[in-house]
Amino acid sequence: MPKNLAQKLIEPHLESGTLEPGSPIELKIDQTLTQDATGTMVMLEFEALGLPRVKTEVSAQYVDHNLLQTDFKNADDHLFLQSACRKFGAWYSRPGNGVSHPVHMSCFGVPGKTLLGSDSHTCAAGSMGMLAIGAGGLQVALAMAGMPFSVTMPKIMGVKLEGELPPWVSAKDIILEMLRRHSVKGGVNKIIEYYGPGLKNLTAMDRHVIANMGQELGATSSVFPADEAVRAFLRQQQREEDFVELKADEGATYDEEETIDLSSLEPLIACPSSPDNVVPVSEVAGKPIYQSYIGSSANPGLRDFVIPARMVEGKHVDESVSFDINPTSRQLLEEISRTGDLARLLEAGARLHQTGCGGCIGMGQAPASGQISLRTVPRNFPGRSGTKEDQVYLCSPETATASALRGEITDPRDMDMDYPQFSEPDELPDMRPLLQPPQEIPVEVELVKGPNIQPLPDFDPLPETLKGPISLKAGDNVSTDEILPAGAEILPLRSNIPEISRYTFSRIDEQFYDRAMELDGDSFVIGGENYGQGSSREHAAITPRYLGVRCVIAKSMARIHRRNLINFGVLPLLFDKPEDYDRLEQDAELEIDNPADQLKDGEPVTIKDGKSGKTFTVIHDLSAEEIDTLREGGLINKTRKDHPDIDA
Amino acid sequence: MPKNLAQKLIEPHLESGTLEPGSPIELKIDQTLTQDATGTMVMLEFEALGLPRVKTEVSAQYVDHNLLQTDFKNADDHLFLQSACRKFGAWYSRPGNGVSHPVHMSCFGVPGKTLLGSDSHTCAAGSMGMLAIGAGGLQVALAMAGMPFSVTMPKIMGVKLEGELPPWVSAKDIILEMLRRHSVKGGVNKIIEYYGPGLKNLTAMDRHVIANMGQELGATSSVFPADEAVRAFLRQQQREEDFVELKADEGATYDEEETIDLSSLEPLIACPSSPDNVVPVSEVAGKPIYQSYIGSSANPGLRDFVIPARMVEGKHVDESVSFDINPTSRQLLEEISRTGDLARLLEAGARLHQTGCGGCIGMGQAPASGQISLRTVPRNFPGRSGTKEDQVYLCSPETATASALRGEITDPRDMDMDYPQFSEPDELPDMRPLLQPPQEIPVEVELVKGPNIQPLPDFDPLPETLKGPISLKAGDNVSTDEILPAGAEILPLRSNIPEISRYTFSRIDEQFYDRAMELDGDSFVIGGENYGQGSSREHAAITPRYLGVRCVIAKSMARIHRRNLINFGVLPLLFDKPEDYDRLEQDAELEIDNPADQLKDGEPVTIKDGKSGKTFTVIHDLSAEEIDTLREGGLINKTRKDHPDIDA
Repeated sequence: MPKNLAQKLIEPHLESGTLEPGSPIELKIDQTLTQDATGTMVMLEFEALGLPRVKTEVSAQYVDHNLLQTDFKNADDHLFLQSACRKFGAWYSRPGNGVSHPVHMSCFGVPGKTLLGSDSHTCAAGSMGMLAIGAGGLQVALAMAGMPFSVTMPKIMGVKLEGELPPWVSAKDIILEMLRRHSVKGGVNKIIEYYGPGLKNLTAMDRHVIANMGQELGATSSVFPADEAVRAFLRQQQREEDFVELKADEGATYDEEETIDLSSLEPLIACPSSPDNVVPVSEVAGKPIYQSYIGSSANPGLRDFVIPARMVEGKHVDESVSFDINPTSRQLLEEISRTGDLARLLEAGARLHQTGCGGCIGMGQAPASGQISLRTVPRNFPGRSGTKEDQVYLCSPETATASALRGEITDPRDMDMDYPQFSEPDELPDMRPLLQPPQEIPVEVELVKGPNIQPLPDFDPLPETLKGPISLKAGDNVSTDEILPAGAEILPLRSNIPEISRYTFSRIDEQFYDRAMELDGDSFVIGGENYGQGSSREHAAITPRYLGVRCVIAKSMARIHRRNLINFGVLPLLFDKPEDYDRLEQDAELEIDNPADQLKDGEPVTIKDGKSGKTFTVIHDLSAEEIDTLREGGLINKTRKDHPDIDA
Repeated sequence: MPKNLAQKLIEPHLESGTLEPGSPIELKIDQTLTQDATGTMVMLEFEALGLPRVKTEVSAQYVDHNLLQTDFKNADDHLFLQSACRKFGAWYSRPGNGVSHPVHMSCFGVPGKTLLGSDSHTCAAGSMGMLAIGAGGLQVALAMAGMPFSVTMPKIMGVKLEGELPPWVSAKDIILEMLRRHSVKGGVNKIIEYYGPGLKNLTAMDRHVIANMGQELGATSSVFPADEAVRAFLRQQQREEDFVELKADEGATYDEEETIDLSSLEPLIACPSSPDNVVPVSEVAGKPIYQSYIGSSANPGLRDFVIPARMVEGKHVDESVSFDINPTSRQLLEEISRTGDLARLLEAGARLHQTGCGGCIGMGQAPASGQISLRTVPRNFPGRSGTKEDQVYLCSPETATASALRGEITDPRDMDMDYPQFSEPDELPDMRPLLQPPQEIPVEVELVKGPNIQPLPDFDPLPETLKGPISLKAGDNVSTDEILPAGAEILPLRSNIPEISRYTFSRIDEQFYDRAMELDGDSFVIGGENYGQGSSREHAAITPRYLGVRCVIAKSMARIHRRNLINFGVLPLLFDKPEDYDRLEQDAELEIDNPADQLKDGEPVTIKDGKSGKTFTVIHDLSAEEIDTLREGGLINKTRKDHPDIDA
């Protein structure tokens, strides 16, 4: 039977389970990716589990998030990660090398391989025919140790691309069109597979734009075939020998089908404050802007900087606009420096920032109060920019640049300008010599831990009776940015659970931390649809758990966060009847008798409402392995129990 | 009678007083410079005084300090400054244009003119035959309004430069030699005038290095002749028409004389934590380093980046070193991008940061705990880097780069390398088109004030009896960084006196703010030698005043801070007998009867020690104008009184 590409990527990596959508599967992981904001916790977990050395083909640790270094904490984390890579046998990519996703693709991406990363945008590597999935840090730590990755077999959605993009419309507009059609929940439990004649003019980096923001659809992953565009990319990276052709079999079918006629697309923009709040640029044109922001893993390609440079050549951006350029990687910055495009940007008034994630994760470049910021980044969740009441719009580099020149939101087609020509260079500088390779022979290395780097707290097994108040009731589409914010103030605390837990739910309810500390016991959190979307940060599960949250009941949950809750012993339950969500109020006392017994596969769970004394039932989709994990109080406890040989 | 250059610069600008050292003089100010960390307060003062438009030849506002934008505050300040420039008629230099001192020199520097700046390193423009002085913001606001600048006529110290620098020794080593000889107090109440045959091979930017760090000697200013090197600089900046030749008359004499034989110099380094803690690099060679930092107004020249680039060409910096490159200006970044030197740095493993002051003022790039940082910046006061217990060494770009390659402090002469050749380009891009010029016709402009921008508090006149406890007793060489720290956490509060005052003296005594708030009344501060050295920030006078400090008694005081105290109504008194300093303890109650009457020119002031009931006397060096200012409670009150026509 002909197979689609996703099936062809999964099948050789299946350690258990089948290709039947909805069934639990275990996947062999070839490569892992960690970044510094999640990576310090991964390395602390690796250490806490007493795991020996990395067993994957490639495990790479990038430092791209916490680069501001407003005090010792970021720098201490960098030294810790470098020492952990030396000790455990991973690649270390120093600050200044660039954003993990494009750098990993350039240095290590190989079609056909699996990649698990402690960053939700890990899926970007699907652009080159890899099966790349974002996950919680603990699962990445276990994958580094050679253990398989558990996930629900997703449905495969086939998206056929037809036609050719018109001038001024680019890859970002394709993924914005997907978000317009399908919303931030549209990809949940799906792999999105792109195919068809429209691929022809999309480079590997264009595809990266689309695969990256597949995460914003909630998709488990996105995949593209490994075709001539991928071969050209690998040749450019001086690694053509790593190319393997991979595509769907002739006649392959999909669980869902979709078509996009590229020639019909126009410049699109996601309005505040959700990536799926998409309209044509022309609908919001004319609004004055404060900032135009180029960069991030959602528009990481050379063309995403060169097109803007050639658009502004010989002109000045509007004097009211901060035109912020965030180079993706050392390689890209070197290249635009050599080609003169950096000088073009600077002469037009651009501000060049250091290479890395920067303002995309709220590490600097926060907009002024109440002002509009146009960004090529993947997310515009409220406050993620660093400014509490921000106005962030997501768009293509073309739209961002046209708007910078005019000082207001502008459809780039209205610029009365020729669309700049760009062709990829045949070869780019190899970045690997500036990564620190794993040491061949394990040597005794002391982990370097600054005063802010604190061990992971221990967590109890599931109690016989789970009882406590509802400490928070949240609405729909709550992102991990709202459960535990990032940004310049909070990110430096990622290695210190007691300290960072102070910010838990602070965007939703500033009293949460004080209330939880006062309660000093178990509690429940209630959520709406798509609870926990966004970033893969497991801190959004760890800090609620640290503050006593033992159960989240929501209408639906985002994949990575659901699994992070399980990994740290928090029950992820689902409302059976929507009226129960409406009925429950904050502070109501809930009680679950014998949760471990009630959690038999697929069985509903009975909850007693302490006030009325009545009961209601909720459902769950937990696998046997996940139930075991919850019973033990999380994956660290379970791993220690399953592998008593590990020197814990 | 032949005159030295300093006298020739002062004389045509004298509005009152004579060239007699020690006498009060008033100077006409041709140009002013403000940067954002002090400039928001300058503009608020300009507004509070109801001053109309700028009356200088040039007033330029730079945004170079607060560029991290970790939340809305920095960005709001930028918009405020831009609107203030529009309203008041000043040039506005946007973020990304670069550090005020070299940018001002490139865009506006003219030999023979006076420049007053609300940044202590304003003196750097002495490198091109200007009389450039750093001052408190309020004095700069008044100078912008056309009022003269009051200062004590300094002694002129002539420094004759002979011979030629050996390879691997550069301008930074000359000023470090001066600091080694004279200490951080050696230049107090002096203008340092450099002359002699050794000038021949020092470019205008080399001289900038020396003039800039004249501030670290405590000098009122430093001056260099406007000779062929200055003409070449102006030609390079496409402004040769602004060149005027200026030098000391034949046979001119100096109040003090000094000679440096350049050929005898070797690479020098200032050890933690004072710029005068200078030793030969060879004495501390071999210590492992964490960071090597290139940039800042203390090494702003093209050669300060190109020499490092050519030193690392084809090599990699040590994998343990963060090699941080901080470009001085948009012009410089464009140039090193065009010449390939930026690519050389990046290929060697450098991290490129945004153009501006950056880590020099603790805005990012803080070193890891307890690790050594080598920097080409002007200051290494404790904690200024952003890391509380830091280990910052000051050195030349050559020494910093050699050390980055080796991973340890290294004398560049030990690198077994040819000293890279560098010659200045004939022409560089004109930066002025990217500055916003003053509007010709005043237009109605609304000042844009974000929620963190608070008006300057009002302050009372001097009371009939000044009475209160000693709220703090400090030691020698307390810098304004210790009185009111900068850094990423605190700098964004510069427009908000109530909020920023929480950090007053926090580096010295974390309880100070709480104690002052509890006291809720007037108090005294006791200091040692050279109290208030370092940055010109008037916040270091305003926030103690806001917290009730009405009098500082010290053994000696740095010029700018002394005047800032006066400007905000804080008495700056001096111990007559050192044993009184030894005797006084924190919390002792002091009392001054009729301080306004006692402050007659030069008269000692009697202070009652509340505990013993005994009295002691202190001295002062206040001019009649300064006494008037103190009586009124500061310069704002005095200006309003003297100019009732101003619409306050």
